[in-house]
Amino acid sequence: MTTPARTRLVAGSLAGLAIMAGALTLTSPAQAAPAKNARAEQAVVQTDVLSADAALKIADAAMKEAVKQKQRVSVVIVDRSGATRLVLKGDGAGPQTEESARRKAFTAVSFGRTTSELGKGVTGGGPTIADIPGTLFLGGGVPVASGGAPIAGIGVGGAPSGDIDEAIAQAGLKAVAGQLR
Amino acid sequence: MTTPARTRLVAGSLAGLAIMAGALTLTSPAQAAPAKNARAEQAVVQTDVLSADAALKIADAAMKEAVKQKQRVSVVIVDRSGATRLVLKGDGAGPQTEESARRKAFTAVSFGRTTSELGKGVTGGGPTIADIPGTLFLGGGVPVASGGAPIAGIGVGGAPSGDIDEAIAQAGLKAVAGQLR
Amino acid sequence: MTTPARTRLVAGSLAGLAIMAGALTLTSPAQAAPAKNARAEQAVVQTDVLSADAALKIADAAMKEAVKQKQRVSVVIVDRSGATRLVLKGDGAGPQTEESARRKAFTAVSFGRTTSELGKGVTGGGPTIADIPGTLFLGGGVPVASGGAPIAGIGVGGAPSGDIDEAIAQAGLKAVAGQLR
Amino acid sequence: MTTPARTRLVAGSLAGLAIMAGALTLTSPAQAAPAKNARAEQAVVQTDVLSADAALKIADAAMKEAVKQKQRVSVVIVDRSGATRLVLKGDGAGPQTEESARRKAFTAVSFGRTTSELGKGVTGGGPTIADIPGTLFLGGGVPVASGGAPIAGIGVGGAPSGDIDEAIAQAGLKAVAGQLR
Amino acid sequence: MTTPARTRLVAGSLAGLAIMAGALTLTSPAQAAPAKNARAEQAVVQTDVLSADAALKIADAAMKEAVKQKQRVSVVIVDRSGATRLVLKGDGAGPQTEESARRKAFTAVSFGRTTSELGKGVTGGGPTIADIPGTLFLGGGVPVASGGAPIAGIGVGGAPSGDIDEAIAQAGLKAVAGQLR
Amino acid sequence: MTTPARTRLVAGSLAGLAIMAGALTLTSPAQAAPAKNARAEQAVVQTDVLSADAALKIADAAMKEAVKQKQRVSVVIVDRSGATRLVLKGDGAGPQTEESARRKAFTAVSFGRTTSELGKGVTGGGPTIADIPGTLFLGGGVPVASGGAPIAGIGVGGAPSGDIDEAIAQAGLKAVAGQLR
Amino acid sequence: MTTPARTRLVAGSLAGLAIMAGALTLTSPAQAAPAKNARAEQAVVQTDVLSADAALKIADAAMKEAVKQKQRVSVVIVDRSGATRLVLKGDGAGPQTEESARRKAFTAVSFGRTTSELGKGVTGGGPTIADIPGTLFLGGGVPVASGGAPIAGIGVGGAPSGDIDEAIAQAGLKAVAGQLR
Amino acid sequence: MTTPARTRLVAGSLAGLAIMAGALTLTSPAQAAPAKNARAEQAVVQTDVLSADAALKIADAAMKEAVKQKQRVSVVIVDRSGATRLVLKGDGAGPQTEESARRKAFTAVSFGRTTSELGKGVTGGGPTIADIPGTLFLGGGVPVASGGAPIAGIGVGGAPSGDIDEAIAQAGLKAVAGQLR
Repeated sequence: MTTPARTRLVAGSLAGLAIMAGALTLTSPAQAAPAKNARAEQAVVQTDVLSADAALKIADAAMKEAVKQKQRVSVVIVDRSGATRLVLKGDGAGPQTEESARRKAFTAVSFGRTTSELGKGVTGGGPTIADIPGTLFLGGGVPVASGGAPIAGIGVGGAPSGDIDEAIAQAGLKAVAGQLR
Repeated sequence: MTTPARTRLVAGSLAGLAIMAGALTLTSPAQAAPAKNARAEQAVVQTDVLSADAALKIADAAMKEAVKQKQRVSVVIVDRSGATRLVLKGDGAGPQTEESARRKAFTAVSFGRTTSELGKGVTGGGPTIADIPGTLFLGGGVPVASGGAPIAGIGVGGAPSGDIDEAIAQAGLKAVAGQLR
Repeated sequence: MTTPARTRLVAGSLAGLAIMAGALTLTSPAQAAPAKNARAEQAVVQTDVLSADAALKIADAAMKEAVKQKQRVSVVIVDRSGATRLVLKGDGAGPQTEESARRKAFTAVSFGRTTSELGKGVTGGGPTIADIPGTLFLGGGVPVASGGAPIAGIGVGGAPSGDIDEAIAQAGLKAVAGQLR
Repeated sequence: MTTPARTRLVAGSLAGLAIMAGALTLTSPAQAAPAKNARAEQAVVQTDVLSADAALKIADAAMKEAVKQKQRVSVVIVDRSGATRLVLKGDGAGPQTEESARRKAFTAVSFGRTTSELGKGVTGGGPTIADIPGTLFLGGGVPVASGGAPIAGIGVGGAPSGDIDEAIAQAGLKAVAGQLR
Repeated sequence: MTTPARTRLVAGSLAGLAIMAGALTLTSPAQAAPAKNARAEQAVVQTDVLSADAALKIADAAMKEAVKQKQRVSVVIVDRSGATRLVLKGDGAGPQTEESARRKAFTAVSFGRTTSELGKGVTGGGPTIADIPGTLFLGGGVPVASGGAPIAGIGVGGAPSGDIDEAIAQAGLKAVAGQLR
Repeated sequence: MTTPARTRLVAGSLAGLAIMAGALTLTSPAQAAPAKNARAEQAVVQTDVLSADAALKIADAAMKEAVKQKQRVSVVIVDRSGATRLVLKGDGAGPQTEESARRKAFTAVSFGRTTSELGKGVTGGGPTIADIPGTLFLGGGVPVASGGAPIAGIGVGGAPSGDIDEAIAQAGLKAVAGQLR
Repeated sequence: MTTPARTRLVAGSLAGLAIMAGALTLTSPAQAAPAKNARAEQAVVQTDVLSADAALKIADAAMKEAVKQKQRVSVVIVDRSGATRLVLKGDGAGPQTEESARRKAFTAVSFGRTTSELGKGVTGGGPTIADIPGTLFLGGGVPVASGGAPIAGIGVGGAPSGDIDEAIAQAGLKAVAGQLR
Repeated sequence: MTTPARTRLVAGSLAGLAIMAGALTLTSPAQAAPAKNARAEQAVVQTDVLSADAALKIADAAMKEAVKQKQRVSVVIVDRSGATRLVLKGDGAGPQTEESARRKAFTAVSFGRTTSELGKGVTGGGPTIADIPGTLFLGGGVPVASGGAPIAGIGVGGAPSGDIDEAIAQAGLKAVAGQLR
């Protein structure tokens, strides 16, 4: 069976993201191949969405890592439509952590790269993507990719440095890494 | 090939919606059958999303119907995550039409039924689903179903009665009806 | 000369509004006649907009009437796109008057009738147009019509009854009545 | 050791809530006893807050119950300050479920009772507590009590009836019931 | 010396409020007398504003009464422009109390009467002033009058009945009653 | 026949925009000539508004160009009042694209130039027009001019560089270029 | 008669503003003298507020200047509480002008100086007052002072340079300059 | 008796904050010691919250200091959840002071240090914590610590320099310093 609509989506996304540098693990050539037209007449695009179960696993693993590192953080996961998938505010996490984690997650899924990488490119004096509403370019945002396209973003906020926030987010991602395509 | 995660989703949605009355064209028994566990270990759920192309076709057809009926309306399409898919404000449409159309679309995709049907059930004096933020229960909201689950909502606002708004929305839906599962 | 695009707009608006009852002074038959196609290839619709000068005249006349009636009110004028044209908060007007006047103006220009007339139709237990965001159906909102279509709404809030608010809004409208088509 | 400040808080809350009917498991007489003044000079009140761990357990148990009942829901937990503790959007849950779940949680922790109980009291034609911003009185909101006072609210939205939403929320609460005071 | 501008304001306000019933202690005849034109050429209106000191006294007295009645409430004071003068969230007060107290204060200063009195008039099925944004017609809102006009509103929220909230607000008002004109 | 009110508007706009550099195709001398006073007594200004039909054509052409360039973008068109004319979210476009496209459209119609041109002027350390709410100065915003004045803005967001976004917006504009005055 | 409360207010404001440089015409020594305690027991502070009449005069004069300079602008006046006094959107003014004018007015009344003067001080790389919500430091904001304190702000937006916006605002202020204390 | 859950919270917070520099008076070693597991099975974390009484004392002392320094300021206190504890707008304080004070308080409690200290670290050209929503890094924000963790923030806005705002906030903090742990 083929799912051409979705596959075309993947191809297009890769083309765009390639210009920004290779942040995503690319799909195999077969997946990125030109889609057949079997469903070209269809009004529907099949899209991969992170499951609620996976979101819980990510949050649980991230929070365990945070406790291990003695950090008080919030974890937010948003999907590719920008909708909330999960929010978890850690014990004693500051009031700014929910929104900062959300924005990091939003930024990571929007651009398909970690916020720490993206942040290096927003330092000039003129307009940058950091002016786009809802974004935040501090470390701690990590994209979740499936089939070569970003399907969700994990954001962590609350540690005293973005590196630690990102390490916690990566620990979360690792918990489901084997279950993504 | 099987896509168990998505199929289970369909089954679950149908179970819930069935209680509310049969607003959706049901999937075939095969599709609603118990999902196999082939991908039970996966972190991803495959979801049907209305394509941008289909959204344009719906808007075009709805607007043509509105012109034919000499109505000044707005058309809004939102997907199952609540994200905007399309907004089109017709010539001379009132300033209230964008938001009323959006809320009708949101309501239709939320509950999987037309807003005119749903509106009949929200007339009591106590709390009703009409209290849920973002909803509007005037006629003119129509769900788009694929694989037995609502994947988008079409909302039309601006005609002097909800029946006309709904007829315009249905004209839009008809334009892609053959391309849905 | 013909301005077919705009004329068609007028025709359509009238068709719709007619169902709601005759709140607007109708255009002459000539203006409502079927539009010719001279500009059918054009991407532009000509629209009548209330001038800033007229808005100031309306506000000045309304405020004078309010002072005469010893009322402390705010006056708001919005155009057909919903954008603010004018806001004037009277001396000693309550903090609720700006928003109540705005919503009355918005409602009047949205539906092309006074809010007092419209308010009589929103009394049932089920969904009504009063559920549409941005509206308010207390007396004090008056539409401004030009060429047979609503081009602006005047809203007044602050008097102890909607009748007084409406009389003040009508005094404002009267100040420019001879200068509308 | 005594924690008089907190104990007084409990006493006061109970006094108020008692008038509304016995929704909470009351504290033992010892806990509700008049507080001593040992820390009367202190600027700090000790407050019980639901742990992040408990929030995850509640969400996990609620989501398992939802899957068992084939319902597509969101779960939200807010604490007594109104801040988000957890949000989890289930697979295929409608776009309205996050906010409806949040408001049910908010309502339950605000008034210390289930939203289904509270909903029975908001049916009159005049002003009711349902007019308070942020509230929602459909079934599915359940308070979490500790030491005789509400410390969090669990809200579930998405099932076709409030009874089912509440059953799912109660399943969540049950998962930590033995770990509350 | 005369302050005609302000005095005219008072006269106008009284005229309007009189229709709503006598909620305010009226000014003496002398104060409400027709204003002289000594400053008719001035661009400035003198307005009485509640002092910060008085706001603190009100909050302190209200909170003491709340503690005496074993209620967990918030107190909000807004001035006639709608701006915040004071917010105080009591120990253990619910998350809904800040906004409900604010809206009661806003409503009381908007209409110059207690919210409990006003609430009796908003029970019909059609449009009422309860539809005006920012208002709340539950008991607990009390206007502060000076020179015959409302200059601030005190709102209390959190007790299980509006009567208790209002008694607490009145205790606050009493603390400055002798210092108003 | 003359339409002096509108023509004066054009003249004024040109005067202002001229200072900013020649971004718009200017009207012919005849159109920019001093307006006669035939309607000087009128309360109405005639304004050119982009038609819904033209908006659909622009969106369709832009989206085709985006597909050709393998970009996942959103297209937004706003009119000169700032109101939404059209929103179309492309397949797989990121969650940030709707708002970034909207702001580019808003900026282009506000200042009557492309956002890429405007962006070159907002690089200093002090206050710039980039501080004005609702604006975004990344490439991808293109004004639509009619009769010498900006009547709408087209915004595209989602491509990895502003140049590509702008090329897609220009492809949309081209689709109606022959139908503007 | 003395109005000590208000006079003390004046004195305090001046003390603060003096540090920022002499933007306001200072009160006479008599007015700034230490206040007597005649009303020290009062709960009320008398405050100068710009009259609605003066606001209309300012808007009218500013708009006339704008027309003379062939600029399409909006004018906004806010009082010292931040509440709207007047909004007037000029013919053909861009959609960004209402909010930019409002923020300039807000900024001018907040800091008691023109936004062009203030803008010179917000150029550093670190935190500045430009980070305060609601402010805008482009030219076009002018404070209205009475009795030595800012009582309102006039903001103008829409001209291609802040200098022109400010000249238009100053023309408005001039219309009431002789009627302020 | 032990309160391990809370103590662990303290330990974790300190660990994190230590990296940012020693802004808080540290707890004694005993308090920071590894928590026992006596309540490891509990779903509740005990948290120190500033009392309403203490908030009033802080506001009163800060306002007295402001009057002494002839400054017109607002004082805001928020707790560690970000919820409002107290707002007090001083006589004649500008309209920007409530929000600037709130954000300083929010920032201080979020990061556990004064905003003046924090402000020194946000001067680079790239992303900084100043990009996090709700924050403001001008002087005038002071954290309130109890048991080694920030439990509230005091923010003051309105003086012509951040140093003065901070001195006023510190005067407030001093009023309860002896009553914190």
